[in-house]
Amino acid sequence: MNKINLAEKFGKFDDLWSPKRVCELNENYVKLAKGLGELDWHSHENEDEFFLVVSGHLDIHLRDQVISLDPGEIYVVPKGVEHRPVAADGAEIVLIEPKETLHTGTSETDHTVALEDQEWI
Amino acid sequence: MNKINLAEKFGKFDDLWSPKRVCELNENYVKLAKGLGELDWHSHENEDEFFLVVSGHLDIHLRDQVISLDPGEIYVVPKGVEHRPVAADGAEIVLIEPKETLHTGTSETDHTVALEDQEWI
Repeated sequence: MNKINLAEKFGKFDDLWSPKRVCELNENYVKLAKGLGELDWHSHENEDEFFLVVSGHLDIHLRDQVISLDPGEIYVVPKGVEHRPVAADGAEIVLIEPKETLHTGTSETDHTVALEDQEWI
Repeated sequence: MNKINLAEKFGKFDDLWSPKRVCELNENYVKLAKGLGELDWHSHENEDEFFLVVSGHLDIHLRDQVISLDPGEIYVVPKGVEHRPVAADGAEIVLIEPKETLHTGTSETDHTVALEDQEWI
């Protein structure tokens, strides 16, 4: 594989809440996503989900608190925990999650992108 | 868990080539390391290893090429591939690797830190 330059990869797409795969990492994919506004409440039954904010700001709403992430900040949503990502003014995010993970978890919504349709960039 | 602010975490230690665990991610640990100079040639038989450079510069020497990483660049060394990290002038690095991974792979060297001795920060 080649190295992944985050700025160059984020320049390759504009669609929102639609994770793009950039590489495999053991049983996971590393993905990049742009968010603006709110994604739906969801959870992942068996998988922790890694978020690293690269630019902008991301609030991860949990049922009992809000995790507020600036660039250079990481949060891992534990398996089974309901969450709703909110990027009021936009955010660029690195996600790492097991290959079988749907980004909207157990909820099928208008934002849901089937695994086989998740693009590689 | 709390969020992880990378700058704050990197301020907590100074030892070199001695990864600190910051969180679990499924079957992996997310770790932070500071490098200066060369680590030894090694490989990980069954695990891919994720590198993200946060500051400084890291050259990952492979037997047939050098992957040259600036801040905001990622490389995943595939399982079984011999590599030698070199940070001539220093680098701060995020690592993600399966819990059972030793950072010097199948080579036991002066740099090897036993898994149970890898600190949490």
